[in-house]
Amino acid sequence: MTDQQLTILVTNDDGITAPGIKNLVQVMKGLGKVIIVAPDSPQSGMGHAVTITRPIRLEKVDMFEGVESYECSGTPADCVKLAVDQVLHQKPDLVVSGINHGSNASINVLYSGTMSAAIEGAIEGIPSIGFSLTDYSRHADFAPALPFIKKITQNVLANGLPDGTLLNVNIPKPDDGVIKGIKICRQAKAKWEENFAERVDPHGRNYYWLVGIFKDYDHGADTDLRALSEGYISVVPTLFDLTAHHFIMNLNSWDLNE
Amino acid sequence: MTDQQLTILVTNDDGITAPGIKNLVQVMKGLGKVIIVAPDSPQSGMGHAVTITRPIRLEKVDMFEGVESYECSGTPADCVKLAVDQVLHQKPDLVVSGINHGSNASINVLYSGTMSAAIEGAIEGIPSIGFSLTDYSRHADFAPALPFIKKITQNVLANGLPDGTLLNVNIPKPDDGVIKGIKICRQAKAKWEENFAERVDPHGRNYYWLVGIFKDYDHGADTDLRALSEGYISVVPTLFDLTAHHFIMNLNSWDLNE
Repeated sequence: MTDQQLTILVTNDDGITAPGIKNLVQVMKGLGKVIIVAPDSPQSGMGHAVTITRPIRLEKVDMFEGVESYECSGTPADCVKLAVDQVLHQKPDLVVSGINHGSNASINVLYSGTMSAAIEGAIEGIPSIGFSLTDYSRHADFAPALPFIKKITQNVLANGLPDGTLLNVNIPKPDDGVIKGIKICRQAKAKWEENFAERVDPHGRNYYWLVGIFKDYDHGADTDLRALSEGYISVVPTLFDLTAHHFIMNLNSWDLNE
Repeated sequence: MTDQQLTILVTNDDGITAPGIKNLVQVMKGLGKVIIVAPDSPQSGMGHAVTITRPIRLEKVDMFEGVESYECSGTPADCVKLAVDQVLHQKPDLVVSGINHGSNASINVLYSGTMSAAIEGAIEGIPSIGFSLTDYSRHADFAPALPFIKKITQNVLANGLPDGTLLNVNIPKPDDGVIKGIKICRQAKAKWEENFAERVDPHGRNYYWLVGIFKDYDHGADTDLRALSEGYISVVPTLFDLTAHHFIMNLNSWDLNE
Protein backbone atom coordinates (compact mmCIF):
# COMPACT_ATOMS: atom_id res chain seq x y z
CA MET A 1 0.00 0.00 0.00
CA THR A 2 1.45 3.34 -1.07
CA ASP A 3 0.71 6.41 0.97
CA GLN A 4 1.10 9.24 -1.51
CA GLN A 5 0.74 11.71 1.33
CA LEU A 6 4.15 10.62 2.61
CA THR A 7 7.23 12.25 1.08
CA ILE A 8 10.38 10.16 1.27
CA LEU A 9 13.77 11.70 0.48
CA VAL A 10 16.29 9.16 -0.82
CA THR A 11 20.02 9.87 -0.94
CA ASN A 12 23.31 7.99 -0.65
CA ASP A 13 27.08 8.41 -0.74
CA ASP A 14 28.02 6.05 -3.56
CA GLY A 15 26.50 8.45 -6.09
CA ILE A 16 23.24 8.53 -8.00
CA THR A 17 24.33 5.84 -10.49
CA ALA A 18 25.10 3.21 -7.83
CA PRO A 19 22.95 0.05 -7.81
CA GLY A 20 22.32 0.45 -4.06
CA ILE A 21 20.22 3.60 -4.40
CA LYS A 22 18.22 2.05 -7.25
CA ASN A 23 17.26 -0.82 -4.95
CA LEU A 24 16.37 1.53 -2.11
CA VAL A 25 14.16 3.60 -4.43
CA GLN A 26 12.31 0.43 -5.48
CA VAL A 27 11.39 -0.31 -1.86
CA MET A 28 10.46 3.29 -1.03
CA LYS A 29 8.20 3.64 -4.10
CA GLY A 30 5.94 1.15 -2.36
CA LEU A 31 5.70 3.32 0.75
CA GLY A 32 5.24 6.92 -0.41
CA LYS A 33 6.15 9.65 -2.86
CA VAL A 34 9.88 9.44 -3.49
CA ILE A 35 12.25 12.33 -4.25
CA ILE A 36 15.91 11.64 -4.96
CA VAL A 37 18.75 14.10 -4.31
CA ALA A 38 22.05 12.26 -4.45
CA PRO A 39 25.71 13.01 -5.16
CA ASP A 40 26.82 13.09 -8.80
CA SER A 41 29.96 11.10 -7.89
CA PRO A 42 31.01 8.66 -5.17
CA GLN A 43 31.52 10.28 -1.74
CA SER A 44 32.62 7.29 0.32
CA GLY A 45 34.61 8.13 3.41
CA MET A 46 33.37 11.72 3.39
CA GLY A 47 32.17 11.54 6.99
CA HIS A 48 29.98 14.48 7.89
CA ALA A 49 31.65 16.82 5.41
CA VAL A 50 29.80 19.86 4.12
CA THR A 51 30.76 22.06 1.18
CA ILE A 52 31.47 25.60 2.34
CA THR A 53 34.42 26.77 0.25
CA ARG A 54 33.05 25.78 -3.15
CA PRO A 55 29.71 26.41 -4.84
CA ILE A 56 27.36 23.44 -5.20
CA ARG A 57 25.67 22.30 -8.42
CA LEU A 58 22.20 20.77 -8.44
CA GLU A 59 20.86 19.34 -11.70
CA LYS A 60 17.54 17.67 -12.41
CA VAL A 61 18.10 14.26 -14.02
CA ASP A 62 15.85 11.67 -15.60
CA MET A 63 17.23 8.37 -14.36
CA PHE A 64 14.47 6.86 -12.25
CA GLU A 65 11.16 6.14 -13.94
CA GLY A 66 8.40 8.27 -12.50
CA VAL A 67 10.58 9.67 -9.70
CA GLU A 68 11.71 13.29 -9.46
CA SER A 69 15.48 13.14 -9.10
CA TYR A 70 18.45 15.46 -8.83
CA GLU A 71 22.19 15.01 -8.81
CA CYS A 72 24.28 17.27 -6.64
CA SER A 73 28.00 18.09 -6.69
CA GLY A 74 28.11 18.23 -2.90
CA THR A 75 28.44 15.72 -0.09
CA PRO A 76 25.62 13.51 1.24
CA ALA A 77 24.99 16.03 4.04
CA ASP A 78 24.79 18.81 1.42
CA CYS A 79 22.23 16.74 -0.52
CA VAL A 80 19.86 16.63 2.46
CA LYS A 81 20.27 20.34 3.16
CA LEU A 82 19.68 21.24 -0.51
CA ALA A 83 16.74 18.87 -0.82
CA VAL A 84 14.93 20.48 2.12
CA ASP A 85 15.76 24.07 1.22
CA GLN A 86 15.74 24.13 -2.60
CA VAL A 87 13.82 21.11 -3.87
CA LEU A 88 11.08 20.22 -1.39
CA HIS A 89 10.87 23.65 0.29
CA GLN A 90 9.69 21.71 3.34
CA LYS A 91 10.76 18.74 5.41
CA PRO A 92 10.05 15.28 4.00
CA ASP A 93 8.40 12.69 6.25
CA LEU A 94 11.39 10.39 6.07
CA VAL A 95 15.03 10.46 4.96
CA VAL A 96 16.60 7.18 3.85
CA SER A 97 20.21 6.90 2.76
CA GLY A 98 21.89 4.03 0.94
CA ILE A 99 21.87 1.21 0.28
CA ASN A 100 25.58 1.66 0.87
CA HIS A 101 27.98 -0.69 -0.83
CA GLY A 102 29.96 -1.75 2.25
CA SER A 103 29.51 -1.92 6.01
CA ASN A 104 28.84 1.10 8.18
CA ALA A 105 28.73 -0.95 11.36
CA SER A 106 30.73 -0.11 14.50
CA ILE A 107 33.09 2.85 14.25
CA ASN A 108 32.48 3.13 10.48
CA VAL A 109 29.41 5.20 11.34
CA LEU A 110 31.84 8.10 11.85
CA TYR A 111 33.50 7.86 8.43
CA SER A 112 30.29 7.16 6.58
CA GLY A 113 28.77 9.55 4.08
CA THR A 114 25.67 7.35 4.05
CA MET A 115 25.18 7.85 7.77
CA SER A 116 26.06 11.56 7.62
CA ALA A 117 23.07 12.08 5.31
CA ALA A 118 20.83 10.25 7.79
CA ILE A 119 22.33 12.23 10.69
CA GLU A 120 21.65 15.44 8.77
CA GLY A 121 18.03 14.33 8.39
CA ALA A 122 17.79 13.68 12.12
CA ILE A 123 19.29 17.09 12.92
CA GLU A 124 16.47 18.54 10.81
CA GLY A 125 14.05 16.62 13.02
CA ILE A 126 13.10 14.14 10.27
CA PRO A 127 12.91 10.37 11.00
CA SER A 128 16.00 9.04 9.24
CA ILE A 129 17.57 5.69 8.45
CA GLY A 130 20.90 4.72 6.88
CA PHE A 131 21.05 1.32 5.14
CA SER A 132 24.28 -0.48 4.26
CA LEU A 133 25.08 -3.89 2.82
CA THR A 134 28.32 -5.52 3.91
CA ASP A 135 29.38 -6.16 0.32
CA TYR A 136 31.61 -3.68 -1.49
CA SER A 137 31.00 -5.21 -4.91
CA ARG A 138 29.29 -3.16 -7.60
CA HIS A 139 27.52 -6.43 -8.44
CA ALA A 140 26.27 -7.06 -4.90
CA ASP A 141 22.94 -8.84 -4.60
CA PHE A 142 20.53 -6.53 -2.78
CA ALA A 143 17.45 -8.71 -3.30
CA PRO A 144 17.50 -10.64 0.02
CA ALA A 145 17.75 -7.31 1.91
CA LEU A 146 14.74 -5.58 0.38
CA PRO A 147 11.87 -7.14 2.39
CA PHE A 148 13.77 -6.36 5.61
CA ILE A 149 14.37 -2.77 4.54
CA LYS A 150 10.65 -2.43 3.88
CA LYS A 151 9.78 -3.89 7.30
CA ILE A 152 12.18 -1.61 9.17
CA THR A 153 10.96 1.45 7.29
CA GLN A 154 7.31 0.59 7.93
CA ASN A 155 8.11 0.29 11.64
CA VAL A 156 9.81 3.69 11.67
CA LEU A 157 6.83 5.26 9.90
CA ALA A 158 4.41 3.59 12.32
CA ASN A 159 6.33 4.16 15.58
CA GLY A 160 8.37 7.28 14.85
CA LEU A 161 11.80 7.87 16.35
CA PRO A 162 12.65 9.96 19.42
CA ASP A 163 14.04 13.43 18.81
CA GLY A 164 17.76 13.25 18.07
CA THR A 165 17.77 9.53 17.27
CA LEU A 166 18.15 7.80 13.90
CA LEU A 167 18.80 4.20 12.82
CA ASN A 168 22.00 2.70 11.46
CA VAL A 169 20.99 -0.49 9.64
CA ASN A 170 23.60 -2.91 8.35
CA ILE A 171 22.73 -5.95 6.29
CA PRO A 172 24.93 -9.05 6.14
CA LYS A 173 25.83 -11.08 3.11
CA PRO A 174 25.52 -14.60 4.54
CA ASP A 175 27.36 -17.40 2.74
CA ASP A 176 24.09 -19.25 2.16
CA GLY A 177 22.28 -16.08 1.02
CA VAL A 178 19.73 -16.34 3.85
CA ILE A 179 19.35 -13.40 6.24
CA LYS A 180 18.30 -14.81 9.63
CA GLY A 181 16.36 -11.81 10.93
CA ILE A 182 16.84 -8.41 12.59
CA LYS A 183 18.65 -7.67 15.86
CA ILE A 184 18.69 -4.43 17.84
CA CYS A 185 22.34 -3.78 18.69
CA ARG A 186 24.86 -1.36 20.07
CA GLN A 187 27.91 -0.04 18.20
CA ALA A 188 30.79 -2.50 18.64
CA LYS A 189 34.15 -1.33 19.97
CA ALA A 190 36.35 -2.01 16.97
CA LYS A 191 38.84 -0.08 14.89
CA TRP A 192 40.88 0.02 11.75
CA GLU A 193 44.42 -1.10 12.36
CA GLU A 194 45.85 1.30 9.83
CA ASN A 195 48.85 1.02 7.82
CA PHE A 196 49.85 2.91 4.75
CA ALA A 197 51.17 1.41 1.56
CA GLU A 198 54.08 3.55 0.43
CA ARG A 199 54.67 4.10 -3.29
CA VAL A 200 57.04 6.22 -5.37
CA ASP A 201 55.65 8.29 -8.23
CA PRO A 202 57.39 8.60 -11.66
CA HIS A 203 59.04 11.81 -10.40
CA GLY A 204 60.64 10.05 -7.43
CA ARG A 205 58.30 11.47 -4.78
CA ASN A 206 56.71 9.26 -2.12
CA TYR A 207 53.00 8.93 -1.59
CA TYR A 208 50.76 6.76 0.55
CA TRP A 209 47.60 4.72 0.20
CA LEU A 210 45.45 4.22 3.27
CA VAL A 211 44.93 0.53 3.88
CA GLY A 212 43.92 -1.27 7.03
CA ILE A 213 42.48 -4.30 8.73
CA PHE A 214 39.27 -3.95 10.69
CA LYS A 215 39.57 -5.48 14.17
CA ASP A 216 36.74 -6.21 16.57
CA TYR A 217 37.81 -5.76 20.20
CA ASP A 218 34.31 -6.20 21.61
CA HIS A 219 33.31 -9.53 23.18
CA GLY A 220 29.71 -8.44 23.86
CA ALA A 221 26.80 -10.48 22.51
CA ASP A 222 24.77 -7.37 21.69
CA THR A 223 27.03 -5.64 19.15
CA ASP A 224 26.30 -4.87 15.51
CA LEU A 225 29.41 -6.77 14.36
CA ARG A 226 28.31 -9.88 16.27
CA ALA A 227 24.81 -9.78 14.76
CA LEU A 228 26.24 -9.39 11.24
CA SER A 229 28.71 -12.23 11.75
CA GLU A 230 25.81 -14.48 12.76
CA GLY A 231 23.79 -13.59 9.65
CA TYR A 232 21.43 -11.04 11.22
CA ILE A 233 20.67 -7.47 10.18
CA SER A 234 21.93 -5.04 12.85
CA VAL A 235 19.83 -2.02 13.82
CA VAL A 236 21.69 0.47 16.01
CA PRO A 237 19.77 3.46 17.36
CA THR A 238 22.18 6.33 16.80
CA LEU A 239 22.60 9.75 18.45
CA PHE A 240 24.20 12.96 17.31
CA ASP A 241 24.53 14.26 20.85
CA LEU A 242 28.13 13.16 21.42
CA THR A 243 28.27 14.36 25.04
CA ALA A 244 29.76 11.82 27.46
CA HIS A 245 27.10 12.70 30.03
CA HIS A 246 28.34 10.13 32.56
CA PHE A 247 31.77 11.80 32.71
CA ILE A 248 30.56 15.34 33.46
CA MET A 249 30.41 14.75 37.21
CA ASN A 250 34.00 13.49 37.22
CA LEU A 251 35.24 16.42 35.10
CA ASN A 252 33.63 18.85 37.50
CA SER A 253 36.06 17.66 40.18
CA TRP A 254 39.12 18.57 38.10
CA ASP A 255 41.34 21.46 39.05
CA LEU A 256 40.41 23.77 36.16
CA ASN A 257 39.44 27.06 37.74
CA GLU A 258 41.82 27.37 40.68
CA MET B 1 58.22 22.42 33.34
CA THR B 2 58.69 20.44 30.13
CA ASP B 3 58.48 16.69 30.26
CA GLN B 4 60.56 15.58 27.27
CA GLN B 5 59.38 12.02 27.86
CA LEU B 6 55.91 13.06 26.70
CA THR B 7 55.20 13.07 22.97
CA ILE B 8 52.45 15.43 21.88
CA LEU B 9 51.01 15.24 18.36
CA VAL B 10 49.63 18.56 17.14
CA THR B 11 47.31 18.83 14.16
CA ASN B 12 44.42 21.00 12.94
CA ASP B 13 42.00 21.51 10.08
CA ASP B 14 42.79 25.07 9.03
CA GLY B 15 46.11 23.91 7.58
CA ILE B 16 49.68 24.06 8.77
CA THR B 17 50.08 27.77 7.99
CA ALA B 18 47.13 28.90 10.14
CA PRO B 19 47.90 31.11 13.15
CA GLY B 20 45.84 28.82 15.41
CA ILE B 21 48.20 25.86 15.17
CA LYS B 22 51.19 28.12 15.78
CA ASN B 23 49.65 29.24 19.06
CA LEU B 24 48.80 25.69 20.06
CA VAL B 25 52.38 24.57 19.36
CA GLN B 26 53.69 27.36 21.60
CA VAL B 27 51.66 26.06 24.55
CA MET B 28 52.51 22.40 23.91
CA LYS B 29 56.26 23.09 23.66
CA GLY B 30 56.07 23.89 27.36
CA LEU B 31 54.55 20.49 28.15
CA GLY B 32 56.46 17.89 26.12
CA LYS B 33 58.11 16.95 22.87
CA VAL B 34 55.95 18.24 20.03
CA ILE B 35 55.48 16.65 16.59
CA ILE B 36 53.29 18.37 13.99
CA VAL B 37 51.43 16.57 11.20
CA ALA B 38 48.86 18.92 9.72
CA PRO B 39 46.99 19.42 6.43
CA ASP B 40 48.78 21.34 3.66
CA SER B 41 45.56 23.27 2.95
CA PRO B 42 42.42 24.27 4.85
CA GLN B 43 40.04 21.36 5.56
CA SER B 44 37.22 23.15 7.35
CA GLY B 45 33.89 21.36 7.24
CA MET B 46 35.55 18.06 6.35
CA GLY B 47 33.83 16.21 9.19
CA HIS B 48 35.34 12.81 9.79
CA ALA B 49 36.42 12.39 6.18
CA VAL B 50 39.26 10.03 5.30
CA THR B 51 41.11 9.77 2.00
CA ILE B 52 40.60 6.36 0.42
CA THR B 53 40.27 7.03 -3.31
CA ARG B 54 43.37 9.20 -3.72
CA PRO B 55 46.96 8.76 -2.59
CA ILE B 56 48.17 10.95 0.26
CA ARG B 57 51.31 13.08 0.25
CA LEU B 58 53.36 13.64 3.38
CA GLU B 59 56.24 16.14 3.25
CA LYS B 60 58.65 17.20 5.97
CA VAL B 61 58.63 20.97 6.36
CA ASP B 62 60.69 23.46 8.30
CA MET B 63 58.19 25.96 9.60
CA PHE B 64 58.30 25.65 13.37
CA GLU B 65 61.58 26.38 15.12
CA GLY B 66 62.94 23.26 16.79
CA VAL B 67 59.82 21.19 16.10
CA GLU B 68 59.66 18.25 13.70
CA SER B 69 56.80 18.99 11.35
CA TYR B 70 55.07 17.54 8.32
CA GLU B 71 52.38 18.72 5.95
CA CYS B 72 49.93 16.21 4.59
CA SER B 73 47.59 16.35 1.59
CA GLY B 74 44.91 14.41 3.49
CA THR B 75 42.21 15.26 5.97
CA PRO B 76 42.74 15.89 9.71
CA ALA B 77 41.78 12.26 10.44
CA ASP B 78 44.33 11.12 7.83
CA CYS B 79 46.99 13.26 9.55
CA VAL B 80 46.53 11.42 12.85
CA LYS B 81 46.57 8.00 11.15
CA LEU B 82 49.71 8.87 9.16
CA ALA B 83 51.44 10.39 12.18
CA VAL B 84 50.99 7.24 14.24
CA ASP B 85 51.82 4.80 11.45
CA GLN B 86 54.51 6.57 9.38
CA VAL B 87 56.04 9.33 11.49
CA LEU B 88 56.03 8.32 15.15
CA HIS B 89 55.73 4.55 14.55
CA GLN B 90 54.01 4.48 17.94
CA LYS B 91 51.19 6.24 19.73
CA PRO B 92 51.89 9.69 21.14
CA ASP B 93 50.91 10.46 24.73
CA LEU B 94 48.48 13.16 23.64
CA VAL B 95 46.77 14.42 20.49
CA VAL B 96 45.75 18.08 20.39
CA SER B 97 43.96 19.62 17.44
CA GLY B 98 43.43 23.30 16.67
CA ILE B 99 43.31 26.00 17.68
CA ASN B 100 40.43 26.13 15.22
CA HIS B 101 39.46 29.49 13.77
CA GLY B 102 35.74 29.31 14.57
CA SER B 103 33.40 27.56 16.98
CA ASN B 104 33.00 23.80 17.16
CA ALA B 105 30.44 23.98 19.94
CA SER B 106 27.08 22.20 19.83
CA ILE B 107 26.27 20.32 16.64
CA ASN B 108 29.36 21.76 14.90
CA VAL B 109 31.33 18.93 16.50
CA LEU B 110 29.93 16.74 13.70
CA TYR B 111 31.12 18.96 10.82
CA SER B 112 34.44 19.73 12.37
CA GLY B 113 37.73 18.58 10.94
CA THR B 114 39.41 19.78 14.13
CA MET B 115 37.29 17.47 16.23
CA SER B 116 37.60 14.59 13.77
CA ALA B 117 41.35 14.60 14.34
CA ALA B 118 40.78 14.47 18.11
CA ILE B 119 38.17 11.72 17.68
CA GLU B 120 40.67 9.77 15.57
CA GLY B 121 43.18 10.11 18.40
CA ALA B 122 40.61 8.82 20.89
CA ILE B 123 39.77 5.86 18.64
CA GLU B 124 43.48 5.04 18.77
CA GLY B 125 43.21 5.08 22.57
CA ILE B 126 45.21 8.31 22.93
CA PRO B 127 44.02 11.13 25.26
CA SER B 128 42.83 13.77 22.81
CA ILE B 129 41.57 17.35 22.90
CA GLY B 130 40.15 19.64 20.22
CA PHE B 131 40.52 23.40 20.81
CA SER B 132 38.52 26.05 18.98
CA LEU B 133 38.22 29.82 19.28
CA THR B 134 34.89 31.38 18.41
CA ASP B 135 36.51 33.87 16.05
CA TYR B 136 36.78 33.11 12.34
CA SER B 137 39.23 35.94 11.66
CA ARG B 138 42.71 35.11 10.41
CA HIS B 139 43.81 37.91 12.76
CA ALA B 140 42.06 36.46 15.82
CA ASP B 141 43.76 37.12 19.16
CA PHE B 142 44.65 33.75 20.69
CA ALA B 143 46.67 35.19 23.61
CA PRO B 144 43.90 35.26 26.28
CA ALA B 145 43.14 31.57 25.53
CA LEU B 146 46.65 30.19 25.95
CA PRO B 147 46.91 29.93 29.76
CA PHE B 148 43.54 28.12 29.83
CA ILE B 149 44.64 25.70 27.09
CA LYS B 150 47.71 24.94 29.16
CA LYS B 151 45.64 24.35 32.31
CA ILE B 152 43.19 22.03 30.55
CA THR B 153 45.99 20.06 28.90
CA GLN B 154 47.87 19.70 32.19
CA ASN B 155 44.69 18.34 33.78
CA VAL B 156 44.24 15.81 30.99
CA LEU B 157 47.86 14.69 31.34
CA ALA B 158 47.48 14.41 35.12
CA ASN B 159 44.04 12.77 35.27
CA GLY B 160 43.81 10.93 31.97
CA LEU B 161 40.54 10.43 30.12
CA PRO B 162 38.28 7.37 30.15
CA ASP B 163 38.50 5.01 27.20
CA GLY B 164 36.42 6.32 24.31
CA THR B 165 36.18 9.88 25.66
CA LEU B 166 37.86 13.06 24.43
CA LEU B 167 37.38 16.77 25.12
CA ASN B 168 35.79 19.39 22.89
CA VAL B 169 37.06 22.76 24.14
CA ASN B 170 35.62 26.01 22.80
CA ILE B 171 36.98 29.38 23.77
CA PRO B 172 34.91 32.57 23.65
CA LYS B 173 35.94 35.95 22.37
CA PRO B 174 34.42 38.18 25.03
CA ASP B 175 33.80 41.81 24.14
CA ASP B 176 36.03 42.96 27.01
CA GLY B 177 38.77 40.43 26.12
CA VAL B 178 38.49 38.74 29.53
CA ILE B 179 37.73 35.00 29.66
CA LYS B 180 35.80 34.35 32.87
CA GLY B 181 36.88 30.76 33.46
CA ILE B 182 36.17 27.18 32.41
CA LYS B 183 32.82 25.37 32.55
CA ILE B 184 32.10 21.66 32.05
CA CYS B 185 29.16 21.48 29.65
CA ARG B 186 26.99 19.31 27.47
CA GLN B 187 26.48 19.77 23.73
CA ALA B 188 23.65 22.25 23.15
CA LYS B 189 20.68 21.36 20.98
CA ALA B 190 21.09 23.85 18.18
CA LYS B 191 21.25 23.75 14.41
CA TRP B 192 22.04 25.61 11.27
CA GLU B 193 18.93 27.03 9.66
CA GLU B 194 20.23 26.53 6.18
CA ASN B 195 19.49 28.39 3.16
CA PHE B 196 21.35 28.47 -0.07
CA ALA B 197 22.33 31.57 -1.99
CA GLU B 198 21.59 30.91 -5.65
CA ARG B 199 23.89 32.36 -8.31
CA VAL B 200 24.19 32.08 -12.09
CA ASP B 201 27.57 31.40 -13.66
CA PRO B 202 28.85 33.16 -16.84
CA HIS B 203 27.54 30.17 -18.85
CA GLY B 204 24.00 30.59 -17.54
CA ARG B 205 24.05 27.61 -15.17
CA ASN B 206 22.81 27.87 -11.60
CA TYR B 207 24.91 27.08 -8.58
CA TYR B 208 24.48 27.41 -4.83
CA TRP B 209 26.45 28.62 -1.84
CA LEU B 210 25.69 27.09 1.52
CA VAL B 211 24.83 29.82 4.00
CA GLY B 212 22.94 29.62 7.23
CA ILE B 213 22.09 31.08 10.61
CA PHE B 214 23.01 29.13 13.72
CA LYS B 215 20.07 28.83 16.10
CA ASP B 216 20.19 27.69 19.72
CA TYR B 217 17.03 25.79 20.71
CA ASP B 218 18.38 24.72 24.11
CA HIS B 219 17.26 26.58 27.22
CA GLY B 220 19.50 24.57 29.56
CA ALA B 221 21.98 26.31 31.85
CA ASP B 222 24.63 23.62 31.31
CA THR B 223 25.21 23.87 27.55
CA ASP B 224 28.37 24.81 25.71
CA LEU B 225 26.63 27.64 23.86
CA ARG B 226 25.40 29.14 27.14
CA ALA B 227 28.88 29.01 28.71
CA LEU B 228 30.41 30.68 25.65
CA SER B 229 27.74 33.38 25.57
CA GLU B 230 28.56 34.18 29.19
CA GLY B 231 32.28 34.49 28.52
CA TYR B 232 33.37 31.06 29.77
CA ILE B 233 35.38 28.36 28.02
CA SER B 234 33.19 25.28 27.40
CA VAL B 235 34.63 21.80 27.94
CA VAL B 236 32.37 19.03 26.62
CA PRO B 237 33.42 15.42 27.25
CA THR B 238 32.76 13.76 23.90
CA LEU B 239 32.07 10.17 22.85
CA PHE B 240 32.46 8.32 19.58
CA ASP B 241 30.05 5.59 20.63
CA LEU B 242 26.95 7.04 18.97
CA THR B 243 24.61 4.30 20.25
CA ALA B 244 21.36 5.63 21.74
CA HIS B 245 21.59 3.05 24.54
CA HIS B 246 18.44 4.29 26.27
CA PHE B 247 16.35 3.55 23.17
CA ILE B 248 17.42 -0.08 22.72
CA MET B 249 14.79 -1.42 25.13
CA ASN B 250 12.04 0.42 23.25
CA LEU B 251 13.28 -0.77 19.83
CA ASN B 252 13.24 -4.34 21.08
CA SER B 253 9.46 -4.07 21.43
CA TRP B 254 9.00 -3.19 17.74
CA ASP B 255 7.41 -5.62 15.32
CA LEU B 256 10.56 -6.39 13.29
CA ASN B 257 10.84 -10.17 13.24
CA GLU B 258 7.23 -11.30 13.01
